[in-house]
Amino acid sequence: MSKFEQVRQRPPAKLLQPRPMILVVSPLRSSVNLSRLVRLAGCSGIGKIIYCGSGKVDRDIARDAVDYVTIESRRSVGPVVSKLRAQGFHCVGLEQTTNSEPLTSFAFQRQTALVIGSEREGLANDVLSQLAAVVEIPVYGQPASYNVVTATTMAVYEYCKQFPAG
Amino acid sequence: MSKFEQVRQRPPAKLLQPRPMILVVSPLRSSVNLSRLVRLAGCSGIGKIIYCGSGKVDRDIARDAVDYVTIESRRSVGPVVSKLRAQGFHCVGLEQTTNSEPLTSFAFQRQTALVIGSEREGLANDVLSQLAAVVEIPVYGQPASYNVVTATTMAVYEYCKQFPAG
Repeated sequence: MSKFEQVRQRPPAKLLQPRPMILVVSPLRSSVNLSRLVRLAGCSGIGKIIYCGSGKVDRDIARDAVDYVTIESRRSVGPVVSKLRAQGFHCVGLEQTTNSEPLTSFAFQRQTALVIGSEREGLANDVLSQLAAVVEIPVYGQPASYNVVTATTMAVYEYCKQFPAG
Repeated sequence: MSKFEQVRQRPPAKLLQPRPMILVVSPLRSSVNLSRLVRLAGCSGIGKIIYCGSGKVDRDIARDAVDYVTIESRRSVGPVVSKLRAQGFHCVGLEQTTNSEPLTSFAFQRQTALVIGSEREGLANDVLSQLAAVVEIPVYGQPASYNVVTATTMAVYEYCKQFPAG
């Protein structure tokens, strides 16, 4: 018998409290990217996405996360960030900017709203100016930036690593 | 002027030596997933993927990584792992198995071959039995497993975090 045997459908890790993290998502060009973000959120125990664009979630991609994650539709990102700040969320952008901090050494606050830009335009100035911090992921080769879902995946992984119990 | 201003096309972080990491990829159902892995590798400074299936890389998805990453085609994963072991690679699977270690606390060796399963079947027994270690990513919600590219993204991020200079 091999030391490593597949375990299918292991029960999820227990969260001692619900994750407060919210993903705030700019309009995406691709509903595939949106659907992949929904699956990522579901697997990671993130219960809420605020989506500021159009496009439908594809259940074949998002899987059971469709029933796990609440998706709220809003018109634009700026006012959403403004409201979340007032509610006490630490609003953190994911973007290549001046004064950004590397994700690899960033200490998240538990009550974080992760603010995600569009595939091409990234985060707009009226959003950037409201953020408490911006995190950036080091790129070591080509192309010069990660896909939006890939970057979000890394940030969500790092956040969950810092708050394994929710 | 806002504290955070977008920086487009920041030059990549300098690696002091080439990353020795290799991605060994089982046959994938989706060439989109393959293409996304190529882009991930390119951005992360990983120069080599050994792909054991069919399917063509889509340049619209992989972008400039197509010119950065060498993709070697092989017939099946088992013999590839066997050869890499003989070359001194620490072969690490990404799978939910008995005796797997959580990615969040796993210490990679620099010369790692990350061995990635198929979307549905994961890693076969003849591969698992040859691995030095298996890492697993905690799932906190639904669905019960991450997409193959999402899981690989997290593992590559963790590896690069441990070896920021290559």
